[in-house]
Amino acid sequence: MSRVSEPASRETLRLIDFYQPITQSLAQVEQILRREMQSDFPAVDAMTRYGFRMGGKRLRPALLLLTAQTLGQVQSAHLVLAAVVEMIHTATLVHDDVLDGADVRRHRPTVNRQWGNRASILLGDYLFSHAFYLAATLDSALACRLIGRATNRVCEGEIRQNDSCGNWELSEDEYYSLIDAKTAELCACCCHLGAHYAGAGEDESRRWAHYGRLIGMAFQIVDDILDMEGREAETGKSLGTDLAQQKPTLPTIHAVQQTPPDDRPTLLELLKTGANARGALEPYFLKHGSLEYARQKALAFAQQATQIAASAPVSEAQRVLEQLPLALLKRTG
Amino acid sequence: MSRVSEPASRETLRLIDFYQPITQSLAQVEQILRREMQSDFPAVDAMTRYGFRMGGKRLRPALLLLTAQTLGQVQSAHLVLAAVVEMIHTATLVHDDVLDGADVRRHRPTVNRQWGNRASILLGDYLFSHAFYLAATLDSALACRLIGRATNRVCEGEIRQNDSCGNWELSEDEYYSLIDAKTAELCACCCHLGAHYAGAGEDESRRWAHYGRLIGMAFQIVDDILDMEGREAETGKSLGTDLAQQKPTLPTIHAVQQTPPDDRPTLLELLKTGANARGALEPYFLKHGSLEYARQKALAFAQQATQIAASAPVSEAQRVLEQLPLALLKRTG
Repeated sequence: MSRVSEPASRETLRLIDFYQPITQSLAQVEQILRREMQSDFPAVDAMTRYGFRMGGKRLRPALLLLTAQTLGQVQSAHLVLAAVVEMIHTATLVHDDVLDGADVRRHRPTVNRQWGNRASILLGDYLFSHAFYLAATLDSALACRLIGRATNRVCEGEIRQNDSCGNWELSEDEYYSLIDAKTAELCACCCHLGAHYAGAGEDESRRWAHYGRLIGMAFQIVDDILDMEGREAETGKSLGTDLAQQKPTLPTIHAVQQTPPDDRPTLLELLKTGANARGALEPYFLKHGSLEYARQKALAFAQQATQIAASAPVSEAQRVLEQLPLALLKRTG
Repeated sequence: MSRVSEPASRETLRLIDFYQPITQSLAQVEQILRREMQSDFPAVDAMTRYGFRMGGKRLRPALLLLTAQTLGQVQSAHLVLAAVVEMIHTATLVHDDVLDGADVRRHRPTVNRQWGNRASILLGDYLFSHAFYLAATLDSALACRLIGRATNRVCEGEIRQNDSCGNWELSEDEYYSLIDAKTAELCACCCHLGAHYAGAGEDESRRWAHYGRLIGMAFQIVDDILDMEGREAETGKSLGTDLAQQKPTLPTIHAVQQTPPDDRPTLLELLKTGANARGALEPYFLKHGSLEYARQKALAFAQQATQIAASAPVSEAQRVLEQLPLALLKRTG
């Protein structure tokens, strides 16, 4: 695990503690990633190696492996699938950074910054297709089906989000439906795969998929908050991109809803000015408690997830799954 | 098949004749595409419907179905897989058009022209993932494996091509290796799937994969020639994009190689000026017979393909596979 033992942000170091029960398995996943991301073609090789170091957190593989270990044993299929979900996640990050024009991620220049948009789009495609190829090396088509469906919902969510840009009147329910597809779906898929390949039945697999979904919802809301009030030095990525892209997030949706109709045009004008509005929005957020509101919502999702994990037989991995949702709320990057 | 019976270019009309033995099956593939490309979300629905009409030629589904019919019978798996390869092809077209900044394809505005680059990147991702999901609905993981590997080689080829832009000293062999990955691989995969799911053994499936590869090579070289000397009104797409993107193609590689070292700097300077150089390059192409050279190479690939098809038991579909490679050389769009 040379990657995660490098100097890293506080948050990465904290996550390592949570990954203790699956350290060995995660190291094997890293090996698979390193092997799969090799290419005989120098142009491809340099980019994939760089790209796969962007994922950083390894949260999705960890969710998959921790679920597996909570319900049984980590199998070789789990290791392959953990690499697959990380590749898919990285593919979406690489394309996201192109879409957002982001310059920095994980404290390093983004792929688009380093190689340009053309190469980044192609790298994302390469990672997507490689992930599907790797998933298909398993015996049954079930993993491909679950991963294909999840990825498709992720992409659908991204298109819907893109379409909702500038729509500051987006309802809170529409917002939840969006982040459910865009972010929570892949986390749900991870836990589903972890449970299924550990021998869990359909109902139990679905319950753990729901766990993953809840943790994904909480995670995305925290991301929204960080984009608004985080510090680039801590998050290690470009901030204010949601505003720059005119993406409605939970804090902004709440502030708009809570602002009386008379004041709303002023707020909407402010939101339209993009990333520069971060400071000017503060009074609105403070007045209506919008960031606090978002934090409470994230907490509620995290608590539901914790309850699901608490119902499983006690083990080291199970305890992590119980603590992880609330711990993720406190991340600063 | 309402799509292909619409007013279309001469070339599409000609292809319809070749599709006679599989008209029914192709109509079923259109139904699958139409069904799969529906979405409950208006933003997604409008784009996917538009995007899936961009493919137009349906050459890859046709190759798959014609191979199937030559070797046995078209099965339901063939229909699903034909839709899958068309989705993957469309995904690459949508991303290609973003990369190339192309405005027109199939006589219509490109997706990027209509909805912008952001939405186009996401639509391509959606089509990719939906294709994999659909492939995974089949019983075995074999189709996912073949399609995943092929798509991965396609993306690898695209990255390599992107990296080779501006490298006018690219060797002819490197060029063939590039288009083999970028274009021929998916055609090979189509014929492989067509043969395999018609009950062909491994050796026979591989022979037909080779047929598809050869037809793909010929097809790409013709594409190179058309980009250089075609008319937009006939091809129905933006031309000169290879030059604009500084992509070495067979005619340009040949012209550079044949130009004496003393004259080469002038030619290289000319090539650097991009799409506007189309006219000024003509004397070089004429002097060295570069377009004719490329045509001969395309012919050689097509003839090899024809020989493979000629060795199969005679049938209506087999005759089409025998005639198609040479017919595709004559296309004007």
